[in-house]
Amino acid sequence: MDFRSDNTASIHPRLLESVLKVNQKNSSSYGADEYSQTLKDTLSDHFGCDLDIVLASTGTAANCIALRTFCPSFGSVLTTEESHLNNDEGQAPELFLSGGKVKTFSTSDKKLDLLKATNWIHKAKRMTPHAGKPACVSITYATEWGDLYSLQELREIRSFCDEHKLLLHVDGARFANAICSAQLTPKEFYNILKPDALSLGLTKNGALQAEVVVLFNLKYKDDLRYVHKQAGQLLSKTRFFSAQILEILKDDLWLELASHANERASELKKIFDKTNRFKVINSGKTNQLFIEMDKKSKDILEKNNCLFYHWQDNTYRFVTSWMTTKDDIKNFSKLLTSLK
Amino acid sequence: MDFRSDNTASIHPRLLESVLKVNQKNSSSYGADEYSQTLKDTLSDHFGCDLDIVLASTGTAANCIALRTFCPSFGSVLTTEESHLNNDEGQAPELFLSGGKVKTFSTSDKKLDLLKATNWIHKAKRMTPHAGKPACVSITYATEWGDLYSLQELREIRSFCDEHKLLLHVDGARFANAICSAQLTPKEFYNILKPDALSLGLTKNGALQAEVVVLFNLKYKDDLRYVHKQAGQLLSKTRFFSAQILEILKDDLWLELASHANERASELKKIFDKTNRFKVINSGKTNQLFIEMDKKSKDILEKNNCLFYHWQDNTYRFVTSWMTTKDDIKNFSKLLTSLK
Amino acid sequence: MDFRSDNTASIHPRLLESVLKVNQKNSSSYGADEYSQTLKDTLSDHFGCDLDIVLASTGTAANCIALRTFCPSFGSVLTTEESHLNNDEGQAPELFLSGGKVKTFSTSDKKLDLLKATNWIHKAKRMTPHAGKPACVSITYATEWGDLYSLQELREIRSFCDEHKLLLHVDGARFANAICSAQLTPKEFYNILKPDALSLGLTKNGALQAEVVVLFNLKYKDDLRYVHKQAGQLLSKTRFFSAQILEILKDDLWLELASHANERASELKKIFDKTNRFKVINSGKTNQLFIEMDKKSKDILEKNNCLFYHWQDNTYRFVTSWMTTKDDIKNFSKLLTSLK
Amino acid sequence: MDFRSDNTASIHPRLLESVLKVNQKNSSSYGADEYSQTLKDTLSDHFGCDLDIVLASTGTAANCIALRTFCPSFGSVLTTEESHLNNDEGQAPELFLSGGKVKTFSTSDKKLDLLKATNWIHKAKRMTPHAGKPACVSITYATEWGDLYSLQELREIRSFCDEHKLLLHVDGARFANAICSAQLTPKEFYNILKPDALSLGLTKNGALQAEVVVLFNLKYKDDLRYVHKQAGQLLSKTRFFSAQILEILKDDLWLELASHANERASELKKIFDKTNRFKVINSGKTNQLFIEMDKKSKDILEKNNCLFYHWQDNTYRFVTSWMTTKDDIKNFSKLLTSLK
Repeated sequence: MDFRSDNTASIHPRLLESVLKVNQKNSSSYGADEYSQTLKDTLSDHFGCDLDIVLASTGTAANCIALRTFCPSFGSVLTTEESHLNNDEGQAPELFLSGGKVKTFSTSDKKLDLLKATNWIHKAKRMTPHAGKPACVSITYATEWGDLYSLQELREIRSFCDEHKLLLHVDGARFANAICSAQLTPKEFYNILKPDALSLGLTKNGALQAEVVVLFNLKYKDDLRYVHKQAGQLLSKTRFFSAQILEILKDDLWLELASHANERASELKKIFDKTNRFKVINSGKTNQLFIEMDKKSKDILEKNNCLFYHWQDNTYRFVTSWMTTKDDIKNFSKLLTSLK
Repeated sequence: MDFRSDNTASIHPRLLESVLKVNQKNSSSYGADEYSQTLKDTLSDHFGCDLDIVLASTGTAANCIALRTFCPSFGSVLTTEESHLNNDEGQAPELFLSGGKVKTFSTSDKKLDLLKATNWIHKAKRMTPHAGKPACVSITYATEWGDLYSLQELREIRSFCDEHKLLLHVDGARFANAICSAQLTPKEFYNILKPDALSLGLTKNGALQAEVVVLFNLKYKDDLRYVHKQAGQLLSKTRFFSAQILEILKDDLWLELASHANERASELKKIFDKTNRFKVINSGKTNQLFIEMDKKSKDILEKNNCLFYHWQDNTYRFVTSWMTTKDDIKNFSKLLTSLK
Repeated sequence: MDFRSDNTASIHPRLLESVLKVNQKNSSSYGADEYSQTLKDTLSDHFGCDLDIVLASTGTAANCIALRTFCPSFGSVLTTEESHLNNDEGQAPELFLSGGKVKTFSTSDKKLDLLKATNWIHKAKRMTPHAGKPACVSITYATEWGDLYSLQELREIRSFCDEHKLLLHVDGARFANAICSAQLTPKEFYNILKPDALSLGLTKNGALQAEVVVLFNLKYKDDLRYVHKQAGQLLSKTRFFSAQILEILKDDLWLELASHANERASELKKIFDKTNRFKVINSGKTNQLFIEMDKKSKDILEKNNCLFYHWQDNTYRFVTSWMTTKDDIKNFSKLLTSLK
Repeated sequence: MDFRSDNTASIHPRLLESVLKVNQKNSSSYGADEYSQTLKDTLSDHFGCDLDIVLASTGTAANCIALRTFCPSFGSVLTTEESHLNNDEGQAPELFLSGGKVKTFSTSDKKLDLLKATNWIHKAKRMTPHAGKPACVSITYATEWGDLYSLQELREIRSFCDEHKLLLHVDGARFANAICSAQLTPKEFYNILKPDALSLGLTKNGALQAEVVVLFNLKYKDDLRYVHKQAGQLLSKTRFFSAQILEILKDDLWLELASHANERASELKKIFDKTNRFKVINSGKTNQLFIEMDKKSKDILEKNNCLFYHWQDNTYRFVTSWMTTKDDIKNFSKLLTSLK
């Protein structure tokens, strides 16, 4: 029972098959191959709009490429205190922003606080140039807390960006989990939020280091190519990653895998909810659960070959993936029952 | 007949097999897996010394991680005008050096000119702090011109670094090609040059985006981990790349593949040398040939499905790889014969 | 009645005299003059220890030079939410840290919260390298809120830095006001806190753009010179600034001027405290007062030629300087009396 | 006889007078004072066009502010190998460009080589994004070699920038010396070259750390303010520097002082030219002479209290300033005569 991370899961067999297929012959390097060319059009179909793409080997790189492209070196990126880019990327944003600043505004449920952000923007503008220039917003969807912005919240973020002329980036490390849970198609999502760029993560959903920076704001098309290369992310054998992404998009495999993970998490949540010993403290809408438990419970679970991560204090994180089986959940349920 | 680049070649089957094997079960993320742990020791055996490693998805990233680790943000990196890091990395070094400067000193055969470099160091020290601090040397082995530093030259570089207290980085995008041609083992190479770090490239030798920053100077061990993550290069599924590298190191497959490519280049060179129409203008010691030809010859070759890159003016680059067959060379020979 | 800022005050006549004196003959440039050489020794006498110095034309530059010297490009600087470097320096710290991150931990009275900082350090170390490396602390003394760290608090900060191996920087834009109020000599201050560097501000105390980075940790002596030049702060005519600082240090003029400003603020505070209409919401220990008042009161004051800055909401800042006279305070007192 | 640098000269008395005048009362900080507001209009009159300005305390800072404003962080700045920004600014440009690269193209007379630059641009565009984006040109006028671009050369630079859509920056550390020698008014200069920005240096011409970034391309007006503050160059007491500049512009004092220095250099050149022992190896059009002499001659001069700088090998630099008197030149002439 491995609930450590969706990164510990394997590559989905269909994706590995696609790699084997590409490997049958040599092909153009640096993304000039046919797979990479097709991928752009395919994603354009999915999102229902013109777009451009570059690939990245990590979510950190994808986020930083988007933000370096959008944010002037005296600009500020508005995000949450809990965002991956503020906490978990080893100060990569600070490196890639080259003078840009990550400013955080969080609500109690770890989403972007538009009221606080608005107040700061007013203050920053009054203080110009003693404060940096508000330039971009970055939200994570699904959030780091496994949660979703509601449609209403997405619309408010859109208005906020319009009002203050801010570019909008979405960290979509678990984007498929989010739209599946929200029952949105990519097109619907795009039409509601109209982001300028999306870091579309597929690695946690079954791919091998395949992340896409999807650029919707084509004004930045040329800049994106330069930043992508400068970030050390222009892969000579791009074709093997493009092919994986084409495959996972085919027949909506990506959504199927994400739904699978979400469902397992939902089942897991129900199991936890039935006990007194464990408390699920987040919404459980996607594939991450944050659980409060005492040390003794934690030790017993670990002793019974159940793997998960310590988050902070007495909180632990359980993540399901495309590989989590119904049997895993059943076995876990039995384990919990046996504890009572 | 594809002589465009060793990047257009496929992944070697044994390496893909290793990926399939790793995929049979889930495993720890971010390099905490058994493959990644073993890889460090295996490389340590190959180089005959203690070392540390991080993986990177591109050669650009590997070089920049090493240089950011070594060079203070007011330091200078001494390299050649023709170096990949000066010309071909989209100003990634300038981004990652964060104030560090790439200074170039080239001999007529496109190697590092130690005399010019020494003169500049004397001047820079006299001018302190109006000039930056000489901090690192970066040489490419094999060079971008497909050439090798002789043992004597390597020893002089070592002395130069000792004298001026400079850290030494080797860009080894085609390191296996170099040591095979020079008939050096990795240990012998290490003992002669004692570099502080090596960007060990395996992508051009048959792997899928598998590059290693090999750190020999363990004083920078902790810094390297931070820089690696900050560069957006800590791969969640590192295990699939570690496994490939373990496989290519096994039974000296990496050397076998590099020798294969070198030999094909050598054969190709002989074919060119027999004509008047084409002139090989580099040493041809490794797997890259630079050829002068007139436009008409170029057009005929391309019309006959021969792929290669324009370098500059009337110079073209031909690269062989582990995939280049004896038949490819024979066919090319026939084509050239038919032209006469 | 100008209470806008100590920056609106003039250059003290004795300092201008010193500029005139230096101007009588030409002299070496870039700090190789006799004044600049003497200044280092003079400051060494004042602080009772070996030290090195570079000059800067702004406090922002002084802070950034110190932090760039101390903080590795993957390191974090721990400071308060309210710090000048976090709020008022136009993202200069983000530029000069080149990947370093400003992390904030504030108590309710706007001082560095050592408990929160300790918790974060534990978390950051556990997360290595997903979080940056805790590297420096920067406190402001007197704080941006016009307040002082107590001797006990200074000692705790020293212990905290020792325990976590953090370098310690002090933003001393109003350092003289602080030590005068705390009744500490520079030597006593140094012996209690043992900072690694101090941004010693003299501009707000009567000088013309004369700020000093005082380096106590001489391990960084060479780095400091490089960073200073790289920051664009090596002044060709340094001598005119060194001479001013020598003059203000002479006969403790700097302390006399700072005490003068502090006393005027103290008198002003008493006047405010006697009213109901105005509320002094900070300690008033140095030369800054933060006052809550209603809009009507504010309008009346401004109408009566009283100058001061809006801070936020219904809070306003009043600053006294070496130029503020007893008559200014009397006139202000009369004005307030007339309002009742 | 001090020929070391125009930086060793004093502040011109009229400029110091202006400082004393400003000091008579307190005034707004951070450039909101009347002098700073007037200065912009005055410069606008001098150059005959709309413009914006920020002040800087060093030429290095002025150059870096202009380049950071203009050059995207993946862009290249084209300049000469001998430029101050490439050699003498302690890698400040590398810090402030944040990923931008300084690319050098020099003619044999140390001016910008437009032919080489054009070739590189063609190559860089072909290689996109493996090479950075050509973004700006920076020329120095008068050059570091004391020379001038001819009107024809200036027109060619203008065409070159137009053709390749490059922004144009002029390092005018000795701008007054240049236009005086070329017999151009500021307006004429502007109309010929139409630069996007000029670093207008007045420090070497008699001011106290008073440098101006003159922005002609008003599209970058807002960006410039942010960059200026972020560079640590927004001076709280800007008024004292604005007043100096207003004074030096008044009655064309700046041109008078620069002409004075140029004339002394011209006289000095004639004296050198009459000997065999010394060889003036630059044009001598402005206030810098580069002289070849043997060690013995150098020793004699120094022994006779003649101050000058060693440049490189057997080359020495002699600089005249507004302070250099006809008597200085006569005395030097006598000294040389006595040597024969």
